[in-house]
Amino acid sequence: MANWHRLTEARIRKAEAEGTLSGLAGEGRLLPERPGDALIDPSDAVGYRIMAEAGALPEEITLKARLDAARADWQAATIEADKRRHMARIADLQMRYEIARDARRKFLRQAPAPAALRLDPGPSEAVLAPAMTGPRYPDLIARLPATVPFTGPEEIERVQGHPFRARLGANENVYGPSPKALTAMQAADAEIWKYADPSHLDLKTEISTRMGCRPANIVFGEGIDGCLGNLVRLLVAPGDPVVTSEGAYPTFAYHVNGYGGTLHKVPYRDDHEDIAALFAKAAEVDAKIVYLSNPDNPMGTWHDGATIEAALEDLPDGTVLALDEAYIEFAPEGTAPRIDPEDPRVIRFRTFSKAYGMAGARVGYAVAAAPLISAFDKVRNHFSMNRSAQHGALAALQDEVWLGELREKITVANERIATIAAANGLATVPTSTNFVAVDCGHDGAFAKRVLEGLARRGVFVRMPGVAPLDRCIRVSAGTGPDLDILAEELPKALAEASAPVA
Amino acid sequence: MANWHRLTEARIRKAEAEGTLSGLAGEGRLLPERPGDALIDPSDAVGYRIMAEAGALPEEITLKARLDAARADWQAATIEADKRRHMARIADLQMRYEIARDARRKFLRQAPAPAALRLDPGPSEAVLAPAMTGPRYPDLIARLPATVPFTGPEEIERVQGHPFRARLGANENVYGPSPKALTAMQAADAEIWKYADPSHLDLKTEISTRMGCRPANIVFGEGIDGCLGNLVRLLVAPGDPVVTSEGAYPTFAYHVNGYGGTLHKVPYRDDHEDIAALFAKAAEVDAKIVYLSNPDNPMGTWHDGATIEAALEDLPDGTVLALDEAYIEFAPEGTAPRIDPEDPRVIRFRTFSKAYGMAGARVGYAVAAAPLISAFDKVRNHFSMNRSAQHGALAALQDEVWLGELREKITVANERIATIAAANGLATVPTSTNFVAVDCGHDGAFAKRVLEGLARRGVFVRMPGVAPLDRCIRVSAGTGPDLDILAEELPKALAEASAPVA
Repeated sequence: MANWHRLTEARIRKAEAEGTLSGLAGEGRLLPERPGDALIDPSDAVGYRIMAEAGALPEEITLKARLDAARADWQAATIEADKRRHMARIADLQMRYEIARDARRKFLRQAPAPAALRLDPGPSEAVLAPAMTGPRYPDLIARLPATVPFTGPEEIERVQGHPFRARLGANENVYGPSPKALTAMQAADAEIWKYADPSHLDLKTEISTRMGCRPANIVFGEGIDGCLGNLVRLLVAPGDPVVTSEGAYPTFAYHVNGYGGTLHKVPYRDDHEDIAALFAKAAEVDAKIVYLSNPDNPMGTWHDGATIEAALEDLPDGTVLALDEAYIEFAPEGTAPRIDPEDPRVIRFRTFSKAYGMAGARVGYAVAAAPLISAFDKVRNHFSMNRSAQHGALAALQDEVWLGELREKITVANERIATIAAANGLATVPTSTNFVAVDCGHDGAFAKRVLEGLARRGVFVRMPGVAPLDRCIRVSAGTGPDLDILAEELPKALAEASAPVA
Repeated sequence: MANWHRLTEARIRKAEAEGTLSGLAGEGRLLPERPGDALIDPSDAVGYRIMAEAGALPEEITLKARLDAARADWQAATIEADKRRHMARIADLQMRYEIARDARRKFLRQAPAPAALRLDPGPSEAVLAPAMTGPRYPDLIARLPATVPFTGPEEIERVQGHPFRARLGANENVYGPSPKALTAMQAADAEIWKYADPSHLDLKTEISTRMGCRPANIVFGEGIDGCLGNLVRLLVAPGDPVVTSEGAYPTFAYHVNGYGGTLHKVPYRDDHEDIAALFAKAAEVDAKIVYLSNPDNPMGTWHDGATIEAALEDLPDGTVLALDEAYIEFAPEGTAPRIDPEDPRVIRFRTFSKAYGMAGARVGYAVAAAPLISAFDKVRNHFSMNRSAQHGALAALQDEVWLGELREKITVANERIATIAAANGLATVPTSTNFVAVDCGHDGAFAKRVLEGLARRGVFVRMPGVAPLDRCIRVSAGTGPDLDILAEELPKALAEASAPVA
């Protein structure tokens, strides 16, 4: 019976993984009890109902056909080893067939099959083959939803059948990296046969002089996403409380869910993350981590550094502040708080994906007290960084002239987005990032229609996931031609959203 | 008192993270009981002993100086906000100082401090500041050693003060990637501002046609290391049994330890991984995963595919075979077993780091039944792959002429290594990889001296970690000039190893 349960579970997981299980009427509930159902183990009953509703029941007919073919092979085989091999297959197919049939019967309230797992009719010497149950997932993993934090624009392009004309949804830096970074990457490509230095010392040294810390205060990862995942893994055991804002970075929430942490969310306040409320919630639930992005994504708002410095006094004992500064290079002087790198309460995250224009390179890093940084070495994938990216990032850091010019271009682009919005009667949220939240003036459903209309017209944008933030669409600071397309298509998308086709 | 315990623990973890805690005489044991020790909580006693022996006790003198300075700042401050800020700092320093002093006293069997956590002498209005305890690690993480699977050659170069002349230690492909792959990467660098397609569909489609599977059977990661880490995360809960070979790939063991799995190891047999013993051990311990590399690393030996196919019948119910085929492209036809991609019992791993010469690009992938592959989407870092690497890998796959030529070069290089070894009276282990295990003819200590002698002479090689494999050094298939250097330096390293300097 153990194999049975495993197979049942495996099938459910398969259906779950294939996304056919969500929103089922019977999901998670027992079948109602009826006379004659006594033989059904409650956990089985749930499983059978979910399977049947999801259409995940193995197809008895297919299995029967495969079983018949296997029996014919067995009959035809002359060598003993071949016969044994076919027999193992038969036993396996037979068992799967029995389970399928039994599951259907149970679901349909028919009497259970009288004698499962016995081969009949068929070769009498058959013994039960290895059950091929495959992976056994721990509960934490089995319960995780098969959701992905963000669908890539390429996937959307494939679904809608045409490429985007303006890629303004992922806050990528359309102006690309410093030419020096590009040259450095292309040169390094010639030595791509070498693993990158897993200690990233050259890059750490360069950054440490800029941040006023030691190399031992820095750890790299595959973007901030990679660093956030490792931080959560280091601190969050199943059930541990973690605090974030309602509508903040979904990938952080994804990692917390992935390690079984319990998320507690506080609302934004006037389109800003509410630091006092975040820290108060952290104290209330005794959070392991509180997440704050400054400047904020998805709204683009920011707090000045002094505000965060002062608030740190209210950070509860034992809570680590994960300060995501992905967009800090776009923000006004003084937005980054001054924090002693050895302060054990804070870990800050930076990236080459935004201002440095290297999103595709996957270079992010964390800065914190040396003991926490060194703990990352316990779990990280040491050889995970691309070697050319490492060289490109080093060159990018050193080109400050380029960074200054970029900031000006972004400011111009953001102003253009605000102008386009205003021309359509829409307000924008003040930003210190390379994107603008455009307030579509109605609810989330309306903004979603605008977003979909733009997508149909070749403009890729994204939007916040929850109210009231989801009244906005989020538009990245594009090139002139990108924003020409936006200016052209936004009125049409708005008109269509106001009078949607059923 | 809660803060106290946390701080004590935090300090111990810090010492642990800094590697000063291993092999201490008192580690994990209680202090012996003595009259007057009744006030010491046993858990504290262990902590204090470990801290003191590790030299991890906070320096009272430094803390006292910082405290005095903070008090002076407080005295000098005129603005109320500044005074409050200094006071918070004073309270924190004072507490740390008290704890340091108390820990020393307890360790030295002195009487505990009479009244801890009270400010004396000092500003009377002080209240206890946030305790700045910082991160609280779950037990699993706290217990993890701060060891790294492999030190990079760059780190060794820094320590020894000179660069390597021949880089033959990491089984990198010194011949580099196909020129077409290089061109593709350099072209893609110009669009590095875009995130890579997180579904990797182009690459999956290309691979699926070659492997006879669907794109849904493939998942990418940052090298095989990244994929292995995610597999372990998906299947191994703390305490779950996992089977590998004694001396096999350390990074796999690192991931299993990292997720709290229990490793069971079986010895190699005649320098081959012992499939029957591995699977028997898996059955014995009810393993979640059994790891097998074919061809094997670090020995270079291999089993033919048919052997693995036949052995699968003995793979126990519920155990997943993690088949690491990093070196498969170098191996003879028939080395890869034919396995139905939907077989739930097996997941195989391949990479662009070895034959394709793109170790620095970080592109590895796993092939398995669609439900297991789709489970990776629950936990993986979706946007972790470098965009140029993705384009390079696609071009590399399509250049089969180049791959054929490479195989010939590797064969020549491996033969040259065997010839060099023979010229020094050393045997080599037959290989189907791009490296050769050279049997140094004595024990692990001797081989280690040879390895160190080679390193001093600018030749980077590695060696297996356990007996009897560690009689060998592992030499990657270098270029002609690389192996000229090996030929020149190996006799000297051997001579030196035979008559080591004390």
